Amino acid sequence: MHEPAPKPPTSDVTPAHIGIIGAGQLGQMLALAGIALGLRFTFLDPSAQAPAGRLGRHIQAEYDDERALEQLTVECDVITLEFENIPVSAVTSVSHHNAIYPGARALAVAQDRITEKQYFESQGIAVAPYAAVDSLESLGTAVEKIGYPAILKTRRLGYDGKGQAVLRTPADLPAAWAQMHEQPAILEQMIAFTREVSIIAVRSTQGELAFYPVGENRHVGGILHRTDIHPDDPAQAQAESSARRVLIGLDYVGVLAIEFFEVEGGLIANEMAPRVHNSGHWTQNGAATSQFENHLRAILGWPLGSTTGKGHSAMLNLIGQIPPRRPILALPGVHLHDYGKEARAGRKLGHINIVADTLNACRVHTAELERVIAAP
Amino acid sequence: MHEPAPKPPTSDVTPAHIGIIGAGQLGQMLALAGIALGLRFTFLDPSAQAPAGRLGRHIQAEYDDERALEQLTVECDVITLEFENIPVSAVTSVSHHNAIYPGARALAVAQDRITEKQYFESQGIAVAPYAAVDSLESLGTAVEKIGYPAILKTRRLGYDGKGQAVLRTPADLPAAWAQMHEQPAILEQMIAFTREVSIIAVRSTQGELAFYPVGENRHVGGILHRTDIHPDDPAQAQAESSARRVLIGLDYVGVLAIEFFEVEGGLIANEMAPRVHNSGHWTQNGAATSQFENHLRAILGWPLGSTTGKGHSAMLNLIGQIPPRRPILALPGVHLHDYGKEARAGRKLGHINIVADTLNACRVHTAELERVIAAP
Repeated sequence: MHEPAPKPPTSDVTPAHIGIIGAGQLGQMLALAGIALGLRFTFLDPSAQAPAGRLGRHIQAEYDDERALEQLTVECDVITLEFENIPVSAVTSVSHHNAIYPGARALAVAQDRITEKQYFESQGIAVAPYAAVDSLESLGTAVEKIGYPAILKTRRLGYDGKGQAVLRTPADLPAAWAQMHEQPAILEQMIAFTREVSIIAVRSTQGELAFYPVGENRHVGGILHRTDIHPDDPAQAQAESSARRVLIGLDYVGVLAIEFFEVEGGLIANEMAPRVHNSGHWTQNGAATSQFENHLRAILGWPLGSTTGKGHSAMLNLIGQIPPRRPILALPGVHLHDYGKEARAGRKLGHINIVADTLNACRVHTAELERVIAAP
Repeated sequence: MHEPAPKPPTSDVTPAHIGIIGAGQLGQMLALAGIALGLRFTFLDPSAQAPAGRLGRHIQAEYDDERALEQLTVECDVITLEFENIPVSAVTSVSHHNAIYPGARALAVAQDRITEKQYFESQGIAVAPYAAVDSLESLGTAVEKIGYPAILKTRRLGYDGKGQAVLRTPADLPAAWAQMHEQPAILEQMIAFTREVSIIAVRSTQGELAFYPVGENRHVGGILHRTDIHPDDPAQAQAESSARRVLIGLDYVGVLAIEFFEVEGGLIANEMAPRVHNSGHWTQNGAATSQFENHLRAILGWPLGSTTGKGHSAMLNLIGQIPPRRPILALPGVHLHDYGKEARAGRKLGHINIVADTLNACRVHTAELERVIAAP
């Protein structure tokens, strides 16, 4: 492989060219934020229909295609990703020639649920009791330690509840293990949480840190359905403190999301996403600076924008179909985001941000919106 | 010319395809707002470097190229423009086959300063005393009627102060007329105004109307330099009333801007722009819905979004060069919009929106920003 010279630091004046590994809706929203800032984009994505492909040059290739990664390295000033499950070896290889954020270490930690839990623990962040599982036999040993109910998950490549099985009795073990398809797994104690909350945090190449207000997440069928932002959320301080340790500990650059379970005694870290995150989409309309703009500012070493919330916000995902637009857009404080993807059951096709001046107005508008979406 | 069948009304569910005549920064900002809504774009623009060309299909042809207009008509659901000086005949020809907003009548009125003044007068809207001029001799007659100081302008194709001459004494007449290059002109009384204000108004295909808070504009060298939004501006009621009459009188669809001079007795209409307008760029960050999104909602017949201002806003144009980004982005409440255009003296390259919670904070941040821009 040809080895281009390392790039000079990103200029403050010349518009920067950003390479993004992945060209789905997250890449698209990064590009929409970045084009407004004068940035240009090249995407690497195997799919010809990738939504973001229209917003820049699209290199259609596998995520670990060496030639494609080299192209990205040569033509871009800095590289980032919208998708964490790319081979760490590919990231390492790019990092020898160009800046890539987040880096190989953050990806390695986030890609393996065991490593991730160990990393949280090393930073003094509480996690649910867990055990590694690599056979039906070791699943038996693990469940003795963890107890019921518990969740068995693949260690790698899980998202939106895929590759997960709940264990409530010994009879559930064989079927749950079969679902793992012989892949290494993790057994986690099922936490009786009061809420699931997440924090979107960001750290720049200059070490500047910023934290958004935490969001409360509700899932349906393993997929994020709704995020509500409560100003002065009691979980803010602990979530921020955990995120700060993770960002600094990993020498992390860019936006990172951490999901927590809230229990009596505080927060238990569930998982992290080393990228812009669905539970931070509300920031497009509800915060002074969106997570997308701040991710770009962070990787370019530009000052971070304010993460202050404006009013009261909620976000509803549009899954499987985009409902008729007119009744949605007629509601006050509603911002539609349609990713332009082909409709398919269970697919995230868009989201709606709701911003209101009062908590009550936000709740009323969101309830009305839920009604419109459910029965268009 | 092949005559395609008239299109059915724009679907509420299928993503719409928008054709835009012109692919400059206004087209780009329309597309950035529209892509987030799931819309697709095709642009008609003669320039290969047109900024918006990257955000959709770019038909590179003259604005009145019949084949290109036909292509636009065939592939788009609805057509609009970011540039008002296209031949009315081209708009009329498109309108036989597809919806085009604003329509030929609004364009015809806005393209000729005499017709525009007559239209304002027909709607009971005050204008400065004026007279048509088509020779040095008729300039003499006009100046007798209007008095000094006065401004001589070409009737057509003027923008950013181009094609204008100020008359203060009879000695100025020959040089002023020479500047018109034998084109039909208009002599206008020079108004001793206290402020220049503008209103951004919008009307949908359904007849829904909305008005943004008026902005106070300051020009430097004939080019808009800065717009400040004052909540509860005393000019709001009169500006809104005038805009309402213009929109309804022209059966107008889309965003329209009207610039006024403020004098002791109220507002005097200066000119209108039948499109999204520079003095409305603050709405991207300072209003619940931007002028760009509302223009698209209007031409698609979707419900209009709220035009309410959020906090206190100002907008500064970036002309000739984009100053270094870091000191700008370090300021609170600042939103950079860089059009990605090549730098050239006197060229609008971007703008900065400032949003703050208090009027004082907005003023302080804007003053600081002006300082940073002037001496980077």
